[in-house]
Amino acid sequence: MTDKKLGGAGLRGQSAGETALSTVGKSGSGLTYRGYDVKDLAENTSFEEVAYLILHGELPTEAQLAAYKSQLKAMRGLPQALKEVLERIPASAHPMDVMRTGCSMLGNLEPENSFDEQLHVADRLLAAFPSIICYWYRFSHDGVRIETETDDDEIGAHFLHLLHGKAPSPLHAKVMSVSLILYAEHEFNASTFTARVCASTLSDMFSCITGAIGSLRGPLHGGANEAAMELIQDMRSEEHARDVLLGKLERKEKIMGFGHAIYRESDPRNAIIKSWSAKLAEEYGDDRLYRVSETCEALMWQEKKLFCNADFFHASAYHFMGIPTKLFTPIFVCSRLTGWAAHVMEQRANNRIIRPSADYVGKELRPVTPISQR
Amino acid sequence: MTDKKLGGAGLRGQSAGETALSTVGKSGSGLTYRGYDVKDLAENTSFEEVAYLILHGELPTEAQLAAYKSQLKAMRGLPQALKEVLERIPASAHPMDVMRTGCSMLGNLEPENSFDEQLHVADRLLAAFPSIICYWYRFSHDGVRIETETDDDEIGAHFLHLLHGKAPSPLHAKVMSVSLILYAEHEFNASTFTARVCASTLSDMFSCITGAIGSLRGPLHGGANEAAMELIQDMRSEEHARDVLLGKLERKEKIMGFGHAIYRESDPRNAIIKSWSAKLAEEYGDDRLYRVSETCEALMWQEKKLFCNADFFHASAYHFMGIPTKLFTPIFVCSRLTGWAAHVMEQRANNRIIRPSADYVGKELRPVTPISQR
Repeated sequence: MTDKKLGGAGLRGQSAGETALSTVGKSGSGLTYRGYDVKDLAENTSFEEVAYLILHGELPTEAQLAAYKSQLKAMRGLPQALKEVLERIPASAHPMDVMRTGCSMLGNLEPENSFDEQLHVADRLLAAFPSIICYWYRFSHDGVRIETETDDDEIGAHFLHLLHGKAPSPLHAKVMSVSLILYAEHEFNASTFTARVCASTLSDMFSCITGAIGSLRGPLHGGANEAAMELIQDMRSEEHARDVLLGKLERKEKIMGFGHAIYRESDPRNAIIKSWSAKLAEEYGDDRLYRVSETCEALMWQEKKLFCNADFFHASAYHFMGIPTKLFTPIFVCSRLTGWAAHVMEQRANNRIIRPSADYVGKELRPVTPISQR
Repeated sequence: MTDKKLGGAGLRGQSAGETALSTVGKSGSGLTYRGYDVKDLAENTSFEEVAYLILHGELPTEAQLAAYKSQLKAMRGLPQALKEVLERIPASAHPMDVMRTGCSMLGNLEPENSFDEQLHVADRLLAAFPSIICYWYRFSHDGVRIETETDDDEIGAHFLHLLHGKAPSPLHAKVMSVSLILYAEHEFNASTFTARVCASTLSDMFSCITGAIGSLRGPLHGGANEAAMELIQDMRSEEHARDVLLGKLERKEKIMGFGHAIYRESDPRNAIIKSWSAKLAEEYGDDRLYRVSETCEALMWQEKKLFCNADFFHASAYHFMGIPTKLFTPIFVCSRLTGWAAHVMEQRANNRIIRPSADYVGKELRPVTPISQR
């Protein structure tokens, strides 16, 4: 093998196509979905409005939103065969493997028979993903077969309801909605690009989303909020947080939840989730995790000029809502599905199969030696 | 949206990384695996030797091959939970959805806990894929729960044994071995690239292979041998074949099994599988499908200067061995798995996350309008 090429490795900076879905790190606006700043969306809309925007191109009217919510509500049930599959996945499984398998299995039971059904499949998955992960989680961890059809108005509330067995408070429902907005779309990241490569063969929506889940599973992509939680969970105080973090920096250990491949100065999603984490900490009564998170934020900036990305304050926020750490990345799936599905539809609308070339660095042509002489 | 860009669309001609695994369409040799011409390999080795070559870098000695075959033989059984999942997939399902789900489910039951296990996982999937597809096929179509552990010496024979309920003839076992060699590896095609994008997030092997299966499922990628079968199956004679094909050409219908994105003059795999299809036709007694295939080959060259690719004579060859058309692409999976897994290992060995950029063609920045005013 030749030396690692840094320029161009990982297709960094190379355009792999066009998108009308989002901008990441453009001047004047950190992150936009279909032209709207994510901050504006997080302050003034719900996740269902954003999902509609990403999938349909425009924000819904009141009537469209009401109809969309009703439609999604009606799609929360899981087929019996899918439940039986989820019951056969052990409690020890990686929750992202469960999501990947649940999505793939649903593709057998309710296949996308033609691309005319693509929006329907996207909506079905949007409604079903919280049901899939919570059905497995509650069955494998608590031994109960939950009813996945709830009357919650929104997807985030539905998720919390299934997880905890009761409807969430308005504050928790609101934070889930904001969180799902923040994670919904992010241009040609690795999981989205996986979905587009798959879509470029004209494969079905379930295959594209299943593949994307597999990519998001990787520790270099999804999972940073889980790693952030592992970092902060044992920090007893601000002072202890400083000690732990300085020790890690000294040992040059990787610290998750800081910096970003695209953003250079700040992640526009951080201030939003941070302010909600502060509100949750106040309600929760014990604000230790919020305080140590703030300490980490200040110290990482002071020592390394690294800023918190979207994942860091998500850790404490999710924890304050009683969400087990292992379900953090599956929530990411429930949100990013909207971006993935929209990218699949965009790829299909103007498709050429994605088939790059490779630089060959292997053996020269050689003849097969008979096996007796090897 | 701006006009479709032809140059660079689908990353055509752009290098997305380095590989030591294969060359496609280089002068002097049409297709090489680790430096060996595929023709040389198909004539002088078995699929197990090629799988070993692709995964380990060198052809095995006699002792290594014997050990490898024993190891693979011992891995053909399926966990009970996986069988129960396969039993819940209806007969109407797309067989590639079954492969995708079977692979994903196995990842829950026997996870790759560290990259040290990557070769073990590749071998496990190599041994288990024929079991997975045949267990589902025989259960859903014939209502029987087959024993997937056979004593067949090779993977291709194992597949035919499970499918037909009896060990295959030496000729059929040989043709399966050759066929699996021909499909084993093909550089940065879309499914392999899917596996590498997934691997670049440092996700697990099951996720990478599951994603690759989803991409191979697309009609622009895998499935051409199935389409070729659909083309030829109703051709009653050479004359009828001419009429059917000329009619399709006149109506400008897409004809699958001809031409190639990379090869310009011929597909080096065609002559190999064609010669085996001829032998099978002779044994089969009714050589109609072989004769009409030859007619198609001559006519497509004469009319369009298009040559048969690897898929075209695979259709008749598989048919002569009694393989249902819908299982053609799953056989492709059983073979290409070797290339996918080797690419995943290669990506991991010199990794940077694959994260290209996109050209933004969407809306300019705009403020959210309150929902009551939309």
